[in-house]
Amino acid sequence: MVNYEFGAGIWMFQQFIDRYATDAYGPPVSTLEAIERAAEVDDIKVLDINYPFAGKGVTVAQVRETLQRTGLRAQAITPHLYMREFQMGSFTNPNPAVRRKAIDLGKRAVEIAHQLDARYVKFWPGQDGFDYPFQADYQRLWDYSVEGVGAVAQSDPTMQFAIEYKEKEPRSHMFFSSAARTLLAIEDMGVDNVGIVFDLGHSFFAKETPADALQLVARRGKLVSVELNDNWREWDDDMAVGSVHLVETLEFLLALRRINWQGPLLLDQFPFREDAVAAARASIKTMRALERLLDRLDLDALKAAQEQQDALKAQRIALDMLLGTNLVL
Amino acid sequence: MVNYEFGAGIWMFQQFIDRYATDAYGPPVSTLEAIERAAEVDDIKVLDINYPFAGKGVTVAQVRETLQRTGLRAQAITPHLYMREFQMGSFTNPNPAVRRKAIDLGKRAVEIAHQLDARYVKFWPGQDGFDYPFQADYQRLWDYSVEGVGAVAQSDPTMQFAIEYKEKEPRSHMFFSSAARTLLAIEDMGVDNVGIVFDLGHSFFAKETPADALQLVARRGKLVSVELNDNWREWDDDMAVGSVHLVETLEFLLALRRINWQGPLLLDQFPFREDAVAAARASIKTMRALERLLDRLDLDALKAAQEQQDALKAQRIALDMLLGTNLVL
Amino acid sequence: MVNYEFGAGIWMFQQFIDRYATDAYGPPVSTLEAIERAAEVDDIKVLDINYPFAGKGVTVAQVRETLQRTGLRAQAITPHLYMREFQMGSFTNPNPAVRRKAIDLGKRAVEIAHQLDARYVKFWPGQDGFDYPFQADYQRLWDYSVEGVGAVAQSDPTMQFAIEYKEKEPRSHMFFSSAARTLLAIEDMGVDNVGIVFDLGHSFFAKETPADALQLVARRGKLVSVELNDNWREWDDDMAVGSVHLVETLEFLLALRRINWQGPLLLDQFPFREDAVAAARASIKTMRALERLLDRLDLDALKAAQEQQDALKAQRIALDMLLGTNLVL
Amino acid sequence: MVNYEFGAGIWMFQQFIDRYATDAYGPPVSTLEAIERAAEVDDIKVLDINYPFAGKGVTVAQVRETLQRTGLRAQAITPHLYMREFQMGSFTNPNPAVRRKAIDLGKRAVEIAHQLDARYVKFWPGQDGFDYPFQADYQRLWDYSVEGVGAVAQSDPTMQFAIEYKEKEPRSHMFFSSAARTLLAIEDMGVDNVGIVFDLGHSFFAKETPADALQLVARRGKLVSVELNDNWREWDDDMAVGSVHLVETLEFLLALRRINWQGPLLLDQFPFREDAVAAARASIKTMRALERLLDRLDLDALKAAQEQQDALKAQRIALDMLLGTNLVL
Repeated sequence: MVNYEFGAGIWMFQQFIDRYATDAYGPPVSTLEAIERAAEVDDIKVLDINYPFAGKGVTVAQVRETLQRTGLRAQAITPHLYMREFQMGSFTNPNPAVRRKAIDLGKRAVEIAHQLDARYVKFWPGQDGFDYPFQADYQRLWDYSVEGVGAVAQSDPTMQFAIEYKEKEPRSHMFFSSAARTLLAIEDMGVDNVGIVFDLGHSFFAKETPADALQLVARRGKLVSVELNDNWREWDDDMAVGSVHLVETLEFLLALRRINWQGPLLLDQFPFREDAVAAARASIKTMRALERLLDRLDLDALKAAQEQQDALKAQRIALDMLLGTNLVL
Repeated sequence: MVNYEFGAGIWMFQQFIDRYATDAYGPPVSTLEAIERAAEVDDIKVLDINYPFAGKGVTVAQVRETLQRTGLRAQAITPHLYMREFQMGSFTNPNPAVRRKAIDLGKRAVEIAHQLDARYVKFWPGQDGFDYPFQADYQRLWDYSVEGVGAVAQSDPTMQFAIEYKEKEPRSHMFFSSAARTLLAIEDMGVDNVGIVFDLGHSFFAKETPADALQLVARRGKLVSVELNDNWREWDDDMAVGSVHLVETLEFLLALRRINWQGPLLLDQFPFREDAVAAARASIKTMRALERLLDRLDLDALKAAQEQQDALKAQRIALDMLLGTNLVL
Repeated sequence: MVNYEFGAGIWMFQQFIDRYATDAYGPPVSTLEAIERAAEVDDIKVLDINYPFAGKGVTVAQVRETLQRTGLRAQAITPHLYMREFQMGSFTNPNPAVRRKAIDLGKRAVEIAHQLDARYVKFWPGQDGFDYPFQADYQRLWDYSVEGVGAVAQSDPTMQFAIEYKEKEPRSHMFFSSAARTLLAIEDMGVDNVGIVFDLGHSFFAKETPADALQLVARRGKLVSVELNDNWREWDDDMAVGSVHLVETLEFLLALRRINWQGPLLLDQFPFREDAVAAARASIKTMRALERLLDRLDLDALKAAQEQQDALKAQRIALDMLLGTNLVL
Repeated sequence: MVNYEFGAGIWMFQQFIDRYATDAYGPPVSTLEAIERAAEVDDIKVLDINYPFAGKGVTVAQVRETLQRTGLRAQAITPHLYMREFQMGSFTNPNPAVRRKAIDLGKRAVEIAHQLDARYVKFWPGQDGFDYPFQADYQRLWDYSVEGVGAVAQSDPTMQFAIEYKEKEPRSHMFFSSAARTLLAIEDMGVDNVGIVFDLGHSFFAKETPADALQLVARRGKLVSVELNDNWREWDDDMAVGSVHLVETLEFLLALRRINWQGPLLLDQFPFREDAVAAARASIKTMRALERLLDRLDLDALKAAQEQQDALKAQRIALDMLLGTNLVL
């Protein structure tokens, strides 16, 4: 059993709202309170923290102090590139002044990351892309995206950056939509310090095979971080880990072993109607149980089956492990 | 050209928010202001109005007065069954007190509908359904849904009611998900005054063929209202009419002619990043242009092609009309 | 553990071909040979048998004899309503002579069903539907489908009939596409002896929640048979049971318990690249293991969680059972 | 109006079969007969020809003679890498002897291409990929795919090669599934003579935005050929051009203008139930009509709208052109 450290995107402990329940699913939660909640989970040790912080007048010093007191660590800083001012795009905004604002916000996120000793700055440019046919000059979107992320990355070669791709939402088409496309865009940036946050749910959503896409990113040396959750494959439902795609989640954890992933596993959940602390614990319990199952896996037998691409044998090995059938029958 | 009256869901002229742009895409808009905006479109004559109203202290009298002054009419009242208090469901809420609240809100919507001379009360129970495997007792969800809507409908046999089905969002699975399923649930209600709001975008989203699902609803005498918009088929993007599925929108308008639909056509759009008035005008211009094209359609030739199920001939007739190819080539 | 009898569609033991591997995935297999292969599985006791039979000059007497010798039973007869002559439709063919042929073939299937003591005649009209926008008069398709199936059903009130719905393939849109729509069509037939074959994979494909759609069919008294398999949700891949949707398959088996299903569970697989006997055994082993797990399920706790619609609790109960976490942690 | 030369995959004029209509949709058609049929279309000038040829004893000389007589040209040779012997994969087959066979067949296709003066050899390895979770070692699939295609490409640097990607079918997951992924694999091959056949329908199927994916391929200098058709976006239905996605097809044709595409446009259709010659003519008529419409497009206005990413303006320009609204209203 790999003894992964666990973490979470801090948003899972904050307030949720959507376009229908406009009075929100619960009361506002400041960044400081969210850290406290994350700490209640016990097993969460690192956080991906949004900047600007939530809550009136919350300072970096307060965030640092709350982290220290609760024994948590900032793993990443994710700037809010998708608020009202960026509704027409951040790095790809048609207005050059807004594009500069996005780059500036990115740079401020770098400063915060240094101050909080975060490992990387994450870009999830949810408003970059397009909604309608004929709306976009796709070559220009490509150039703006490459230039924007590249500019922030070049501004501080000591900082690691990572792009989290997603197919859609809030834009009906997001620019960074899949692992392969994002790898190509990173190539075009011509920098060494930009990689990928691999989000399991986004990979399902992109119609990828996560265990396959993971190796693609890893072999090119671009895997910076790993986030887990689950969904119904046609939308980013951000559910608890393993709740729908249990078999593929298991395969994904095995793929993490194969690439010898040593970093933390972060949760990216939106428990709209559930208690966030309980929702985090549920995912961690499931991941640990799956990890324990993997210890029972006959790797040599699986390797032999995969060498033959023998679907039934490989499935049997996986399902026997999962269902305990080898023990029981 | 059928000279349809046009209308809209009032929400398209109000404030939009989503789970990422939590500072909203624009400022708040009261129900009264939204009516004014709708009137600016010129061609919009009827509205589907949410209740409770938006804006502090807005009264029915004010809404009525604003409608009269602007020359608009209330077509429907749609109660907000999907706000925070109903996050675990309205008619299907596990808590009987909340289910009663939903029924009470439905009845208040009936009163408002009478006061504003609206034609029907619409139920769109976006929080009724489930998110996770194993979460729901599906038989119970069915019973609660049938009982809840039925109870409101029985409370006032003089009022018309209509259910708007949608596959998902905000729940990852909504109870009323497709035309056929909703027809079966309506049967079980044992009342005569509940029908269906047919939303073109929701029909795309449900993987239905809209022109086909429409006739199914109409033949059973359950078509109460028609809403139009467009999307990318995997989500309820609520875009301008005809922007993606132009051919199928044309086929849908032809299907409306075939069932001799005389009611208004309502818009159900969420122009997050566009001007709402312009977005409404765009849809209306497109619908009128499509209607004009349908006048050119050789209905006898199409009928003959369809009797033979001759795909190429039927397509040729439709595309020639659409592309003007019969004139040009 | 419910001690289900297992069965299979006989096609899973026959020759596979597709539009690319036009030299087929293996040699031809006659109906008689296919029965022999099915018998090799050991646990397969009943078959859904296509008519006309495969193999030159194969007679009913031979089929009966082979069934008896191998200890198998005919559960259903499924007429080949989707061969070349029915490429434009069977019951919905634009040519009345072909529609009559379809009805005649249906009646011959009834005779064969009587001769082989089969429980029901299955209709899977894979060529009934349409491919292109504007191609079909949907009202007419509806009438033809209702009339065609109804005519065969009326011809022998002592025989049970069942429709197997599927969203698409070979037609790009099949007429009988979902559980709810098929229930409505059956209503319109005005007969008592037509029900539904619930195919788990087709339910995934139709974007249904199988455990939910099952109860809908069962409560209306229309569940005739149950077939299992798995797929990737966007196509009818006909894979081994539980290979992708393990959690939902478990929920489906629980739903079968809830409606007290006593009939056999039939496999509907197309093991193009696998050994058919091994593929059947794999599915049966998985189903038995899942059934055994269900015995461990704390039904009272699950009921309580579902009464609260408590997603995390319900999931925990299901996943603890599946992962053995209640025992291990 | 760009005066494109038109072409087709020869298969569209041959026999169709699928897993249900196993007696095929029509009689067998040899390669020679298929060329004759293609010539009947009149506007088809180039063909993508499968090798080995269909029909007993058909020789290269006969094919060349038939092409010359009918005035057609071989544009591409596509080896049958997806027949029975390659059912477990061609370049990725677990058996090294079969992998060598695939490479050898590729090399024979090169010889045929030279003999018929074809511009490129196309690889569409429909059996390379996997069906089940846990079945494949994805790193190995990657290596085999890169090595296999690379080996053939290296064997003749004077020949152009092109990969046609598709998401699935016949494999439930094909290895070369998207434009971006295929570009990455081509990078790894380290050769200059491998590019991409961009199939419009496969791009829809891969959830790409075709006009966007096209520019991505073109900017990297890897666009070798263009094929058109249409589908319902969840499967490779291979329908006539523009029948479903008319707006996006128009946008795609505009994208071809932007990259100044001078090559032919090839059809990739499977008219199972339609006359193949008529089906080809239908697509060509539609493409020409769309091309004519593009001539009316106000490119400066569109450019201005796209610079502002103004969805409504850009849509208006496109829809006005398409619906003739600028002329009529």
